[in-house]
Amino acid sequence: MPLTLAQLADRLGVELRGDGARRVRSVATLAHAGPDDLAFLANRAYRRFLLTTRAGVVVLAPEDAQFSPVPVLVSDNPYATYAEAARILFPPPAPKRGIHPSALVDDSAQVDASAWIGPQCVVAAGAVIGARAQLGPACLVGEGSRIGDDCRLLAHVTLMDKVRLGARVTLQPGAVVGSDGFGMAKVGEAWKPVPQLGGVRIGDDVDIGANTTVDRGALEDTVIGDGVKIDNQVQVAHNVVIGEHTAIAGCVGISGSARIGRRCTLAGGVGIVGHLEITDDVHITAMSMVTRSITRPGTYSAGTPLMPNTQWRRNAVRMRSLDELAREVKELYNHMLFNK
Amino acid sequence: MPLTLAQLADRLGVELRGDGARRVRSVATLAHAGPDDLAFLANRAYRRFLLTTRAGVVVLAPEDAQFSPVPVLVSDNPYATYAEAARILFPPPAPKRGIHPSALVDDSAQVDASAWIGPQCVVAAGAVIGARAQLGPACLVGEGSRIGDDCRLLAHVTLMDKVRLGARVTLQPGAVVGSDGFGMAKVGEAWKPVPQLGGVRIGDDVDIGANTTVDRGALEDTVIGDGVKIDNQVQVAHNVVIGEHTAIAGCVGISGSARIGRRCTLAGGVGIVGHLEITDDVHITAMSMVTRSITRPGTYSAGTPLMPNTQWRRNAVRMRSLDELAREVKELYNHMLFNK
Amino acid sequence: MPLTLAQLADRLGVELRGDGARRVRSVATLAHAGPDDLAFLANRAYRRFLLTTRAGVVVLAPEDAQFSPVPVLVSDNPYATYAEAARILFPPPAPKRGIHPSALVDDSAQVDASAWIGPQCVVAAGAVIGARAQLGPACLVGEGSRIGDDCRLLAHVTLMDKVRLGARVTLQPGAVVGSDGFGMAKVGEAWKPVPQLGGVRIGDDVDIGANTTVDRGALEDTVIGDGVKIDNQVQVAHNVVIGEHTAIAGCVGISGSARIGRRCTLAGGVGIVGHLEITDDVHITAMSMVTRSITRPGTYSAGTPLMPNTQWRRNAVRMRSLDELAREVKELYNHMLFNK
Repeated sequence: MPLTLAQLADRLGVELRGDGARRVRSVATLAHAGPDDLAFLANRAYRRFLLTTRAGVVVLAPEDAQFSPVPVLVSDNPYATYAEAARILFPPPAPKRGIHPSALVDDSAQVDASAWIGPQCVVAAGAVIGARAQLGPACLVGEGSRIGDDCRLLAHVTLMDKVRLGARVTLQPGAVVGSDGFGMAKVGEAWKPVPQLGGVRIGDDVDIGANTTVDRGALEDTVIGDGVKIDNQVQVAHNVVIGEHTAIAGCVGISGSARIGRRCTLAGGVGIVGHLEITDDVHITAMSMVTRSITRPGTYSAGTPLMPNTQWRRNAVRMRSLDELAREVKELYNHMLFNK
Repeated sequence: MPLTLAQLADRLGVELRGDGARRVRSVATLAHAGPDDLAFLANRAYRRFLLTTRAGVVVLAPEDAQFSPVPVLVSDNPYATYAEAARILFPPPAPKRGIHPSALVDDSAQVDASAWIGPQCVVAAGAVIGARAQLGPACLVGEGSRIGDDCRLLAHVTLMDKVRLGARVTLQPGAVVGSDGFGMAKVGEAWKPVPQLGGVRIGDDVDIGANTTVDRGALEDTVIGDGVKIDNQVQVAHNVVIGEHTAIAGCVGISGSARIGRRCTLAGGVGIVGHLEITDDVHITAMSMVTRSITRPGTYSAGTPLMPNTQWRRNAVRMRSLDELAREVKELYNHMLFNK
Repeated sequence: MPLTLAQLADRLGVELRGDGARRVRSVATLAHAGPDDLAFLANRAYRRFLLTTRAGVVVLAPEDAQFSPVPVLVSDNPYATYAEAARILFPPPAPKRGIHPSALVDDSAQVDASAWIGPQCVVAAGAVIGARAQLGPACLVGEGSRIGDDCRLLAHVTLMDKVRLGARVTLQPGAVVGSDGFGMAKVGEAWKPVPQLGGVRIGDDVDIGANTTVDRGALEDTVIGDGVKIDNQVQVAHNVVIGEHTAIAGCVGISGSARIGRRCTLAGGVGIVGHLEITDDVHITAMSMVTRSITRPGTYSAGTPLMPNTQWRRNAVRMRSLDELAREVKELYNHMLFNK
């Protein structure tokens, strides 16, 4: 469904610089776009591709607009404007409705007439499925769980009992919500499982990635706030609380009862120890381990830089005696001061 | 099903201090419990909530009992006593029995009459399912695999061929046991898969977390001992051997043929290199990498502390020349000694 | 199906030293092999088991052959020769063909007559399934996806839309290919999902491990080259490109738009930051974080060595002031030079 640049500018609410009668029908990267494509520049690393782009139109920040050889849609937030344009050019498929004959829906479950329950799904007793919710193939919804309006469970998603999703929550394939937390009491040398009696409460506009796991609470609920975005293969343990609009990249692990603030970002592979608290607006860089509460907003890091292996071996071994080294330096320093 | 405190004390085999006629019907945290709830104190971090708790009764260690404003169940192991109380107040649902009509069970599989095979399950040829075993929706059991008495496969669990579970094994949703190990021989620049011919042998009372993976052995079996507890998103490679009562937290990765001893704990995100051996009673703190065998019990750690990013940048770059720094200090030290 | 050593040597194309009329029927480790078993030595750590092995025959490198107490198959690549022998002694089951009655195959999907679609599978509109492809139980194939000849999807595999697999691709249980990438534009304090419009293109002879996730591209495809081997629980983000014959061990995370070269190896738990490029023949050791492009082949490492916890606490705290330490050493050094 091609659109003129004038139509696009109008729908996006941004300024067009260039021929409003031109049409685009698709989107592409700056480097590979042709005259039918809309492109964008949001990451400075790709700026070199702007000068030679053959795109039909490019979404650019005001300061980049002058460098474009082709028409420009000027936006203070080019990435968001691009996202909106992509949604206009590629509208998501209309929601399906009904229950696939192979799906098993308990008689006591309430499924909105506008929702879609896909093939091989299993919806247990007392579950509630909201308006226009879309369950892809082989999704499981546990007893008494509630799925809000316009949620999407893509495929092979598992919701166990007592899970509540707000509106517009998306779960990617293989995501598990409501598994039992890792709570065990030591008795002699054995571990005895502690009953996990809480649920999971997920707000509106939350995205949860493929094969990510979110455990139910032990007593109270595990809570994920509105607008939280979680990538693939993330582990969220029991009774974790995540504040609104926090974004969590792939392979992060959050231990039990940790509380993460609002508008935080956890980069890939970060680990959070249990029973601590991270305040709002904290950013943790990739693969850092957080072992204490963080009370001040800011960016935090841990880890060692990559080196050629031979150099690393020489340096890493010195970390075993870093304290001794520091003591020696102090001794030397005192000696120097004394002899000055 | 409310119980009097006297009844509870009796069933738990612990001392009650307070009014035995009072009743509780639920459990809650110290901070949020009301008069109908049993609470407990097991983690010192929450001790401040004891003085003001409104719980009906609290499970406490003897040394904490005097500080409680409400009746106390005195236990040397409050967390274990709480777990038992929670199981009494919230008994697990009675096991189901039978085979759901949508399940596919091969004619040559033996399913105990007291077991439950849930909707959409597939049980392959020669599989054996023990007494009272409970297979939730969409679980797969491979050829010749054996599931012991009272096992629970919650949902979307995959057991491939030649997997043997002892009694009372629980597998959380998305767990995979018996996938092919990552064994490959290099031929020129290509990797040729090496047939993975072993199985997986899992003992009694083992718990395996959501989306955790356990590979089959290459030749001999991968072995998980009695009482081992494994959290979510853990990777156990082929021919790993894990000793009894070892507990493994989320996101741990254990490489091929590593042997972990008994009563060990691996905290979240730990990585274990292949073909090494960790003795009994070893504890590894979060996100540490183990690259050599450990022959003495104790607690081991690796990793660097979290810092504000600007401080980290200054420090991290110095790790590249730590060896040089150490050499300089040695030189300075010798110089100082010589000039004393 | 027992074979004589002469037959085996002939089929493997290697030299036999010993009695060609002896027969073996199975494979085993050096330590546990009996007279009916073929064993091999590929890892020096196990060499001590050679002298006392009771195997029927051992595959050995020429330099080890003289130490064997039993017949030897001499190979320059014992592990590859063993793999081939194991395939001869344990040929994989003949491929099944047909569509299980419980599988749901869209009318517009093209399934080769020699392929097998297992129980509970769902094959969506426009999908194409190649010759002899084997779909195990509960696998999902999205709209328009193409599965090449001789592919194997073992169980509970999810392929979303626009995924293309070459020939002889194997996906272990729980693998997800084609999930939406983690692309979001910040608008105020909220994150707006960016439509993920690309697909995934996977070459020939690729293996993908259990519960591994591969996201579709945002605009262009995510690309995995021929012969790439990926272990369990790996996360491959949108628009990653992985070169031919690269091997990626368990729990690795690769962020968006990273490009990995050919013949690289990423050991367990490695993390790769987004939008960077790693050249061919780069090897990254376990749990290292890669934050910059790597332009020279070689082996690279990061991380700190494991220590007893008390020693680690003393040393780790010093990392917070490493820069200050280095400055002091420089000052001392200058002082010493000046006073010499």
